Amino acid sequence: MPSLPIDHIAVAVRSVQTAATLYELLSGDRCSPPEELPEQGVRVAFVGDVELLEPLGPDTTVARFLDRTGPGLHHIAYRVPDLQAALDRLAGEGLELIDRTPRRGAGGHLVAFLHPKSTEGTLIELVEGPV
Amino acid sequence: MPSLPIDHIAVAVRSVQTAATLYELLSGDRCSPPEELPEQGVRVAFVGDVELLEPLGPDTTVARFLDRTGPGLHHIAYRVPDLQAALDRLAGEGLELIDRTPRRGAGGHLVAFLHPKSTEGTLIELVEGPV
Repeated sequence: MPSLPIDHIAVAVRSVQTAATLYELLSGDRCSPPEELPEQGVRVAFVGDVELLEPLGPDTTVARFLDRTGPGLHHIAYRVPDLQAALDRLAGEGLELIDRTPRRGAGGHLVAFLHPKSTEGTLIELVEGPV
Repeated sequence: MPSLPIDHIAVAVRSVQTAATLYELLSGDRCSPPEELPEQGVRVAFVGDVELLEPLGPDTTVARFLDRTGPGLHHIAYRVPDLQAALDRLAGEGLELIDRTPRRGAGGHLVAFLHPKSTEGTLIELVEGPV
């Protein structure tokens, strides 16, 4: 199996706008136009490889994450050439999946999450795309 | 300013050996030989761009992190061409630094950390190296 690149690192924030200023200052990258993903309850923008996640309302997974732990690192994403094949492979290895089949994420990409119970406490996303 | 690449993403784990197996399975990368950094109280190994951090003892920052929040994402690192210049620039922008001058990190690289109070809750490291 070829090694998989990191697609992005996601950070939960209270405000994409405020965090974008910080990450632009840190990295020299420009923030992408924010995108709303109502199904996931988040507003999303990218500054380089950092994805900023702002909750769209209080009853969302990212709002609950912020309430529980405050702003900070939320998940990392690997890019895979064939998402369903990757999910089948990892399920076959005994990993617990949050999504057994791909769904639509930011930028219209197919994405799926692995359960942190199976991944030493870290929430890991897989994103289909060229590797 | 040219945009800075992500150097690595660090994950706090109870065992580098156990976590290495997981991340090798996820990414297809091979784990580097573990390295001990007694000054920072950690055993470190890399699986691709993921740095695994295992505490060397109970009275270390990573052990306290594990006690407080459990295993999971710990920090992200940007690679910068001139670390002291980057620290001076960010201090001049009003960011609080943990390290005002570079120190030695994994692989003998010069590294420094920014304070999460200034970075929306995320611990951010800078690593000197080619960008």
